[in-house]
Parts: sequence; structure tokens; C-alpha cells
Amino acid sequence: MTEHVIDRLYQSMARVKTPLCIGLDPDLSKFPQSILDRVSRIDDGGSHRAAATAIRIFNYAIIDATCDIVGIYKPQSAYYEKHGHWGVEALEDTADYAREKGAIVILDAKRNDIGRTSEAYANAHLGKVLAPNGQYIQSADNVDFITVTAYLGSDGVKPFVDVADKFDKGIFVLAKTSNPSSGDLQNLKLESGIEVYVKMAELINEWGKGNIGECGYSNIGAVVGATMPKEAAKLRTLLSYAVFLMPGFGTQGAKAEMLTNGFDKNGRGAIVSSSSGITYAFSNDKFAKRHPQLAQPEKFAQAARQETLDNIVDITAALKNANKLPRQWAA
Amino acid sequence: MTEHVIDRLYQSMARVKTPLCIGLDPDLSKFPQSILDRVSRIDDGGSHRAAATAIRIFNYAIIDATCDIVGIYKPQSAYYEKHGHWGVEALEDTADYAREKGAIVILDAKRNDIGRTSEAYANAHLGKVLAPNGQYIQSADNVDFITVTAYLGSDGVKPFVDVADKFDKGIFVLAKTSNPSSGDLQNLKLESGIEVYVKMAELINEWGKGNIGECGYSNIGAVVGATMPKEAAKLRTLLSYAVFLMPGFGTQGAKAEMLTNGFDKNGRGAIVSSSSGITYAFSNDKFAKRHPQLAQPEKFAQAARQETLDNIVDITAALKNANKLPRQWAA
Repeated sequence: MTEHVIDRLYQSMARVKTPLCIGLDPDLSKFPQSILDRVSRIDDGGSHRAAATAIRIFNYAIIDATCDIVGIYKPQSAYYEKHGHWGVEALEDTADYAREKGAIVILDAKRNDIGRTSEAYANAHLGKVLAPNGQYIQSADNVDFITVTAYLGSDGVKPFVDVADKFDKGIFVLAKTSNPSSGDLQNLKLESGIEVYVKMAELINEWGKGNIGECGYSNIGAVVGATMPKEAAKLRTLLSYAVFLMPGFGTQGAKAEMLTNGFDKNGRGAIVSSSSGITYAFSNDKFAKRHPQLAQPEKFAQAARQETLDNIVDITAALKNANKLPRQWAA
Repeated sequence: MTEHVIDRLYQSMARVKTPLCIGLDPDLSKFPQSILDRVSRIDDGGSHRAAATAIRIFNYAIIDATCDIVGIYKPQSAYYEKHGHWGVEALEDTADYAREKGAIVILDAKRNDIGRTSEAYANAHLGKVLAPNGQYIQSADNVDFITVTAYLGSDGVKPFVDVADKFDKGIFVLAKTSNPSSGDLQNLKLESGIEVYVKMAELINEWGKGNIGECGYSNIGAVVGATMPKEAAKLRTLLSYAVFLMPGFGTQGAKAEMLTNGFDKNGRGAIVSSSSGITYAFSNDKFAKRHPQLAQPEKFAQAARQETLDNIVDITAALKNANKLPRQWAA
């Protein structure tokens, strides 16, 4: 029997003593020029194929520079789909590369559909699929978790839960997102007196309660924006089994002290994610003030490592202040 | 100035005198054995690459057999993602193939995210993206429309609208889906007295009213399940500018007469989609009773054509009964 995915997630946080996750959202407009130049021999640098090669070079360097200090990576599918099947191949290679370094990989793809099609998405990224010769073969990216949007209701999510359970994988369902207009729909009050996102939380709790790991959490987690401390506190009391994936730390404006509401009293139950704040730290003004010697394109990987270290210090301090730092994580 | 995408859509329906759209959801477990055998020389038929080749053979045959009688194809992304980047390449090739035959292509991918990432998704499928040499190049699948889920609210959808407007493309936003538990969230009543899906419709109307084609409709449409006639009628009165994409005709149980509520009084404003009901007609019992001579795996393409013709007759009759058949579509 393989280990429960949520326990593997916890071990990977324990190894590095931080719940920080690095989002990998490759954006060529922010890449160091030297990387773009390195792929100019491929189709004169004017193709999706060349772009996919640049993405690999960039991502591998970020992972190499950080994999001893963080245990989780979260590639965001849109930034790979931009380059069609060449980009998707770079995503598969990135997931492989991170996994080979011992990390957990969360594919941020917010997939959603009805029954049969949700099952196809789930198997596409977490499970196995039928080959022409009748054999079932490993999905091409084979990630540990995928994010899921649940606007279509239970029978749209259940196939993801079933496939995750079967292959010791997990999902994170969007509850309360980090964007300014997330309230357009999520914060509307229902006739029953609760908000839409609270109703969603109740559904997530229901979907996840059947598969709990030794750590006490389920393989069915929730996406809760790091920019929403009030909602995070409310959801933490409602969602007994769901680990929170909290994006928005860094460039979206969430500060470390806003995050601690997502953690339980033992400092467990949440993952904090930062993407461009870390990967493009070299071009960030605030970073440059703190570390002028690293604020250079050719030092992008070292800068990402330094920003990661700074983030870890901030998160650890905030958890300590909130009296939630796990004893094992204390220095 | 290129033509408005919604007028192009209307012309493509006018050419074939039907609002029927064929969904392309390739599922190897339903393919004729002869197609699976034809790819056995590729990696002994045991790879994603072999699967992608089988998908191309199947899809091209379906398109060849039907492109003179329908004007719209809707590939569903999940069934291609199942085979990783090889599958995504088969999706790109399928979209190209359908477009070369003069058809409109709707990518059913239900993408969704916040600002910057929604923009990446939109450009990935409808727009142009940056290459390493600084040039903007055509997106790899370059479809006419993409489906979008709007749980994240306005700032998650607006980038799709902006990119669609810029490149004369369009989107269909999920309002009321065709699955049994779509009501889990969509039918909940808000404090204000309206249901969640009605609120969503109001948002869709708002997003779409700025870009209306000569036909009087917008490039921002709505997904409205064909299995939901009551909701379709309500939404038709609410959504003045949105064309409805109505999946669920055929295997999901929607009959032709259930669909007519989605059409306006002139028989415009809706697309009816059927997927496996058409593509796997050869293995369907009801089809076999009507057309025993075509209910054979080697006649899958002819069977798909016959089922398409039968569907068109049903839809035309239902529109006529509802006194909604466009005069130009009458035989």
C-alpha cells in the first residue's frame, strides 16, 4: 500500500520546515534576456517550440536553486498552454523534474466538468488512461494534486475524488479565491443565511471526510485566497479535514500575518503559495532594496532562492507570533 | 476589418440550415477496433503517441463525413489532455482540420482563473502569445470560441472578454449546466430572491453587451444545459445578447422539443450540441434499430453522418412545432 498523499505532503513540508510552495508561472516577458537568447537557434526564437525550451531552462534553474528549502511546486497550466502542445510537454517535464528532486507537485489547472468528462480530466492528470492496445498507461504529467472548480456541483467533483482516492492523489477545490472580485459570486448571501463560499466549504467537507491520512487531514483540500484573512478564519473552523492551499502571498499583496488564520492551532492545515514574487524576484524593486547584489537578470535563480529564504523567515515569524509554529519546525 | 465572430457563426449555421454542433470527445474505449489496430505499429499501440494518432484518424473521418451538413465542431479538452502533449497536439490538428473545412470551432475547456492567468488562458486559445525573439505568434489551437467557468467573478472573466474582442473571437460562460447535480450550487436561492444561475446570467449580459454583431447577438454567450427547459426559457428572456450553447442533446437525455426554449422567437440564439450520441452512433442500440445496416464499427463515420441527419430532422421539426423555424431554414 502506498502512503496517503496528504501524509506525503506533510513529510515534504517537515523536511524543509515550511509550508511554502513555489508557483511556477513561466512568463517570457519577465525572463532574463540571456535565456531568451539561448533558444534563438531554435526556429530563430520565433516559435512555441523555442518558447517551451526557454521555459524548461528557467524552471529547472528555479527548482535546482530552491529544492533543498521548499518541498512543493505548483505549475499553473495557463502559462504552459500558451505554447500549445510544446508548452504542455514542458509542463510534463517540469513536473517530472520537481518530483525527481523529491518535491510534491500541485497542478493549478482549475479543471471542471460533468461526470464522464471530469473523470477524463482526473485520469488525465492524476490517474491512468487507456492506450490503443488495451493497456492502461500512466498519465503524462502524473502530478500529486490538481486544483478543481466546483460550479457544476457534486457530480462534477465526485469523479475527481474517486480517481484521487484510487491513485493516492488529491485535489484542492476552489472555495474563496484571492482576486478582488471573487465576491461577485462567492460572497453572495443565500436565502439560508450563509454565503456561497460557505456552502461550497460544506460541500468540500462532505467530499473529503471519507479519506483521512495519519496527519488528520484529507486528500480533498480547499483553495482559500491568502488575501482573505477573515474568510480564512471562518473556513478554518468549518473545514475540519481540508488542507488549505493559499495563493496570493507575495505579489498579490497578502502579508505573512494575514495567512496564519488558515492554519490550525498546531500550525498545520495550510500551504502558502508564492509565484512571480519568488521566480522574478531579481526584477522586483522591494527585493532590490534588500539585496541589490542579486537584483540582476543573470542572478535570477539565486535571487529566487534568497526571496524564498526571506519568505520562509516571514512565515515562520508570523506563525510564531500567532502561537502556531509547529514545535518540530522551530529552528 | 475581419467579420464579427458571431456573424461568422450565424453564416456557418445558415450554410447548413441547422444549429446542430458535433462534440468531438474521443474515447478509445468506444473506438472501432480497426482504428486501434491501425496504430499498433506505433510503440506497439501502448503509448500516448499511438493514442493521439488513433484520435486523429477517428476525428478526421467524422469531420469528413459530416462537414457538409453541420457548421460547428466542439472538441472537449479533457479527452485530449488524457494523452498529455501528444493528445493536445491531436486537438490542435483537429481544430485546424475542422477550420479548413469551413467550420467554426468551439473549444470546450471551461477554463477559469484570476486576472493575469485568465489572460494567459485567453491568449493561449484565442489570441497571440510572445515568442522568445520578441514577436507575437498565433496561439497553437486558434479556436473561434472557448467555454469559461465564472466562479471567480468579473475580474476572472474580463480578460477572456478583452482578448476575445481584440481577436474577433468569443466565449461561452457557464450559466446553467446539464448535469443532475448542477443545482447543488447553481439553483441555490440568494437572499435577493434570485438563484445563483440567474445572477450569473445577469453578469453574462453585462459582460457581453458591449460587442454585438449584425445578427443582434454578442460574442459573449452562455452555456445552458439542453436538459433544463424551464431554466432555458427563463434565461432566454433575461439574456438579450447571449447565444446559448446547449450541450446534452442525445445521450444526456435532452429531446429536441426540450431545446426550443433556448431559441428566440425567430429561431435564433442557440446552438445545440451532441457528442457521443453522434460519434458513437454505430454502437448505440436505438440507432441500430433505426439503421441496422449502419450499426457496425467499420461504418462508424457513415453512422455518425446518418445520426447527424436524423438529429437535424428532429431539431427542425421541434423548431417548426414551436413556431420558431427561421424561414431561411425551411426546406
